[in-house]
Amino acid sequence: MAHINDNFLKLPGSYLFSEIARRTAAYTAAHPEVSLIRLGIGDVTRPLPAAVTAAMAKAVVEMGTAEGFHGYGPEQGYEFLRAAIARNDYQARGVDVAPGEIFVSDGAKSDCGNIVDLFAPDCVAAVCDPVYSVYVDSNVMAGRAGEYDPATGRWSRLLYMPCTEENGFAPALPEGEPDLIYLCFPSNPTGTVISRTKLQEWVDYANRTGAVILYDAAYEAFVTSPGAPRSIFELEGARTCAIEFRSFSKTAGFTGTRCAYTVVPRELERDGAQLNQLWNRRQCTKFNGVPYVVQRGAEAVYTPEGQAQVAENLRFYQENARVIRTGLAEAGLTVSGGVDSPYVWVKTPAGIPSWDFFDRLLQEAHVVTTPGAGFGPSGEGHIRLTAFGEAEATRKAVERICAVL
Amino acid sequence: MAHINDNFLKLPGSYLFSEIARRTAAYTAAHPEVSLIRLGIGDVTRPLPAAVTAAMAKAVVEMGTAEGFHGYGPEQGYEFLRAAIARNDYQARGVDVAPGEIFVSDGAKSDCGNIVDLFAPDCVAAVCDPVYSVYVDSNVMAGRAGEYDPATGRWSRLLYMPCTEENGFAPALPEGEPDLIYLCFPSNPTGTVISRTKLQEWVDYANRTGAVILYDAAYEAFVTSPGAPRSIFELEGARTCAIEFRSFSKTAGFTGTRCAYTVVPRELERDGAQLNQLWNRRQCTKFNGVPYVVQRGAEAVYTPEGQAQVAENLRFYQENARVIRTGLAEAGLTVSGGVDSPYVWVKTPAGIPSWDFFDRLLQEAHVVTTPGAGFGPSGEGHIRLTAFGEAEATRKAVERICAVL
Repeated sequence: MAHINDNFLKLPGSYLFSEIARRTAAYTAAHPEVSLIRLGIGDVTRPLPAAVTAAMAKAVVEMGTAEGFHGYGPEQGYEFLRAAIARNDYQARGVDVAPGEIFVSDGAKSDCGNIVDLFAPDCVAAVCDPVYSVYVDSNVMAGRAGEYDPATGRWSRLLYMPCTEENGFAPALPEGEPDLIYLCFPSNPTGTVISRTKLQEWVDYANRTGAVILYDAAYEAFVTSPGAPRSIFELEGARTCAIEFRSFSKTAGFTGTRCAYTVVPRELERDGAQLNQLWNRRQCTKFNGVPYVVQRGAEAVYTPEGQAQVAENLRFYQENARVIRTGLAEAGLTVSGGVDSPYVWVKTPAGIPSWDFFDRLLQEAHVVTTPGAGFGPSGEGHIRLTAFGEAEATRKAVERICAVL
Repeated sequence: MAHINDNFLKLPGSYLFSEIARRTAAYTAAHPEVSLIRLGIGDVTRPLPAAVTAAMAKAVVEMGTAEGFHGYGPEQGYEFLRAAIARNDYQARGVDVAPGEIFVSDGAKSDCGNIVDLFAPDCVAAVCDPVYSVYVDSNVMAGRAGEYDPATGRWSRLLYMPCTEENGFAPALPEGEPDLIYLCFPSNPTGTVISRTKLQEWVDYANRTGAVILYDAAYEAFVTSPGAPRSIFELEGARTCAIEFRSFSKTAGFTGTRCAYTVVPRELERDGAQLNQLWNRRQCTKFNGVPYVVQRGAEAVYTPEGQAQVAENLRFYQENARVIRTGLAEAGLTVSGGVDSPYVWVKTPAGIPSWDFFDRLLQEAHVVTTPGAGFGPSGEGHIRLTAFGEAEATRKAVERICAVL
């Protein structure tokens, strides 16, 4: 008799975005005349840059010819893309990362989820609170999280690192002894960055204790504050303690095109094994690479035209973020994020619960947001807004919210 | 201190295709004047069908416009593709599979590898011998395979089901009590099919014992023998005991374009849980769907033009298979497969070891093959040839092999 992995059954039923979709659909069904503005899910709306579609179109033509056809590619990604990433995203910024340390994949979500395969089942993971749910859920599935306590919203074997207004949304070093440390900066959901000094403390801590930092830098392209780190590998000593996740999703609009990459430095070893080699083995066994056409599209992001078009998209979203941030602050709300990030993190007025504020904004302002409680207990009393909408709709959403307050 | 998943260290170092690549490269370096013909790796060579590239080109244009842009798609695949698959690959053949039971993915290899996440760590897996290595290696990584014995080439906790000339390359019901049963038909590497009666025995066995059959039907499009099953769901009772993996790789030439799907029937339950829901949860947590452009390409496979073009590609490869099969048989070799499969499984002459025969064909006939021993102990004394080459090169390779014998 086959038995299931019963860790799956421990996962609480309703996933945040399904519950948002359910409440939104119920409201729309009851009020079909209302036009909602969605600033909830972090999905981009601007089309793919012209340099990207041109490269993809060319690659599609190639794939239809005997000479240009590409079958199985390297599981790690084509050399042309790995080299372009190393050169542009790292070496040009003075950061030492080689093409052989870059693994091209179909998404940062896949990599963040699959990376747990590499570690011992009894490793203790530390996560920020609030947090992107994939870090938690993938550890639950791997049997590492212990039991869920619905009263606290926490898992018994995970270490939680609160990120609150008080600590500037950058976690303090933990009290326990985590083996795996998930950090995401610019942060999803709080939209804040970590200072170089603070991040250096984490790198030093990991090197001292042997912990591995799983660094999610999916939003690094939004960093504008001078001195704020865009990669953990800018920090002294990170090559012996960190893995970094990056994505084309939010920079080049690849959420529906699927390309990302993970950096595993050669110096990163535990128990005498190179994690670069373990990840290589995992990917070669359970993954077959990213479509050739998509990799050609990603490569085009690094052309001068691609860079200019991506910069234009970023400016567009950054202006939305500014509109949300300043508009809501003027209306008297306490707001963070939105400067180095597409996410704006908003304190609910008078401390009302985040799902209540979500409902109120849905019903009265006709704006869909994301309740902070969905990201963990310390997210309670907040909502998350995203800058990925249309400019006009974003402006209108802010007006509507201000009018309701 | 983070500890690694030490099951990774148990995996024997050299992967079959890396070792082939190493020997081939060494020979080429020493004999740069020799032109090798590669009939080793199962990668297609025909370009994408015109219907597919036309649909992809159209989708690329859409992705460059505000109206046609697609961000995150459903993790399970777009409804247009799931519906086309259900209609064409199942319902039109009288097989009951609904769109909600189909999960579109980036590859049968990914799905075969990731499916192990769903089952208890102490499940016992049964694999055919010879076998596609991903079934074994993914169970090793999950800690289910026990210890490797280099003397036998076997893992202590896996059950091996020999597939030999004696049993017509269709395994007998096992002596032990496996919880997970990997079956692959048309078989990689032996190129043979299983009869409906035999497969029914397996389905009945699984329903009796509660085992789950993981059925890899990646090569079903090559089935031509009347009555041979193309899907396990053609069999009575399979909906309560089987998961099926399918791919566009070998039918429509998608090895470099990446699209596949897995069917998890709603009736498949273990420990009171629907496996369809577990897989859905797994995919929603660790996967973000297949590129929109690729899914539009896959959809076009089901248009009348797409079907005609795919049939033409299949005929091309089937003719190659016939050339290999009949050519080598005429030369006195014992040959199986190649009728309902792109793979031809060849007994080495006078029982010489398969790596020795590989070397001899490489050095004397200048043909790259795959040694059967690389697929497991019962593959010893065989080599695998693939029909995915060019027609002229395939003919020449057979001539060269015959001349050497």
